[in-house]
Amino acid sequence: MKKQSGRREFLMTVSQVLGASALAGSVSTQALAGHSTTPGLPAVVPEGFTVGDVMNLILKTIPGAPFPKTVDTLKSGSADQKVTGIVTTMFATIEVINKAVATGANFIIAHEPTFYNHLDETNWLENDAVYQYKSALLKKHNIAVWRFHDYIHSHQPDGVRMGVMTALGWEKYYDDKNPHVFTLPGLSLKNIAATAKQKLGIPTVRIIGDLNQSCRRILLLPGASGGRSHIQGIENEKPDLLIIGELSEWETAEYIRDARLKGDTISLLVLGHAVSEEPGLEWLVTFLQPKVPGIKVQHVPSGNPFLFV
Amino acid sequence: MKKQSGRREFLMTVSQVLGASALAGSVSTQALAGHSTTPGLPAVVPEGFTVGDVMNLILKTIPGAPFPKTVDTLKSGSADQKVTGIVTTMFATIEVINKAVATGANFIIAHEPTFYNHLDETNWLENDAVYQYKSALLKKHNIAVWRFHDYIHSHQPDGVRMGVMTALGWEKYYDDKNPHVFTLPGLSLKNIAATAKQKLGIPTVRIIGDLNQSCRRILLLPGASGGRSHIQGIENEKPDLLIIGELSEWETAEYIRDARLKGDTISLLVLGHAVSEEPGLEWLVTFLQPKVPGIKVQHVPSGNPFLFV
Repeated sequence: MKKQSGRREFLMTVSQVLGASALAGSVSTQALAGHSTTPGLPAVVPEGFTVGDVMNLILKTIPGAPFPKTVDTLKSGSADQKVTGIVTTMFATIEVINKAVATGANFIIAHEPTFYNHLDETNWLENDAVYQYKSALLKKHNIAVWRFHDYIHSHQPDGVRMGVMTALGWEKYYDDKNPHVFTLPGLSLKNIAATAKQKLGIPTVRIIGDLNQSCRRILLLPGASGGRSHIQGIENEKPDLLIIGELSEWETAEYIRDARLKGDTISLLVLGHAVSEEPGLEWLVTFLQPKVPGIKVQHVPSGNPFLFV
Repeated sequence: MKKQSGRREFLMTVSQVLGASALAGSVSTQALAGHSTTPGLPAVVPEGFTVGDVMNLILKTIPGAPFPKTVDTLKSGSADQKVTGIVTTMFATIEVINKAVATGANFIIAHEPTFYNHLDETNWLENDAVYQYKSALLKKHNIAVWRFHDYIHSHQPDGVRMGVMTALGWEKYYDDKNPHVFTLPGLSLKNIAATAKQKLGIPTVRIIGDLNQSCRRILLLPGASGGRSHIQGIENEKPDLLIIGELSEWETAEYIRDARLKGDTISLLVLGHAVSEEPGLEWLVTFLQPKVPGIKVQHVPSGNPFLFV
């Protein structure tokens, strides 16, 4: 049995989860009182920031935001609560929540779901002991969790890509006219895999291809954009190597396997989902910190969950 | 970006793809002429079998078949063509097709899609060179490919589970009243992983858990049944170890990670999709061969596609 194929869609409206005050397209009256007239750059904020203020400061920088449908909703806490500190991460794991609490932060901005499904639906988890424990932990410490997925990818440029590019040291191979494709000097697949493992802190990667193949044209798609996205990317860009976070094995892996059996030299490097996008949440710190003076913004990596045996 | 969560649904009707003759619930008149009266067991078949005859012989053994909606449709060839030999496999890769041709077989029964998406939709691939090559190869050699996914899992007992159980040597731990759960004497996770790697021919597995943890109650879900299936299975069965083929990392992996952070001893062993179900296609040979005397049925494993580096 399998999951339904196809890219995730933005199925929840922001307004379903957030009150209008947090979505007005500008910061709340309280926070505005202390803001300079420089767009998005508050100067003095005697009253501090609410969760909604921080969200709005970010949304002001995203083209087209707020989106009518998005998974980027509050998963716990409220837009009205005062922010004591901000943690950015891939997954708001129980460990990340405990680390936030330990540093006095009460606002976690996480790229991925909190409750183990894309829409963070929780009805089916009401009687689940892990869900109950995590919800109670968030409530006990009054932690707000906001998902920042659709918006970071819609930022110009994509914040995740910027973070990953910087972590890999690939700035010089970047072309903002074709930001998915990095043109390298021609390195072996083995060399590129070793670089990715070292720079992104990955113990083991999965590969389909010839480790000695020279790769020049790299299609970099962190995360799990889906089989059609991967395959159409290959059709359009004709890369030597596709680097992704996660795949459905019956989609991308089998396409690459057949392409190689046909005689194509395309290879595949699978980094793992969490580690493939984590640098995007480091990027978020440098992006957000200047906008919220007086609030500490720190990145707490949720890290790679797997042992490879 | 991610794919839409949720289990695959059976979205195509059999009748969309197959003619009524192949779905009559009994073999065609031509094949019936040579059949004995023993249900499903033809004795002498002077005229041989068509693809549709073989499909019907199988469907007669599946409760509720034919299903109004199923992905188990013909992906190439026709129900009317005479079968010269049958190959069973997980994926009808270009390599498996070439091996079928080399042995004179013109009917491949594959558990998984042929064209890189669950529904084997091909409109979006019309201009894709890999799709074109594979389609032309199938057409040139007049190869029929039938997907046998929903039906093998609906067989009583599930043919994939039977194959995997036999390959692992776990028959003595099987309980047909609760067929997903195997009760072992209490082996370390490390030991179980080593057994699975050796018996199923897997180079590397992914694990979340303590390698020294003793595992007694094993929830075995080969393939990729989805996060809700995995999580609800854990809720219901309270296993020490969940063994699966493939997962969405943001679903099952993060649930297991949080469960362990909460203090639960649940562990996860990810085998890889193809290798986790391949023994089911070996089971199919022993199931099918007695039903088609005079036709050679052989298993050609498509194998693990990945290097672990």
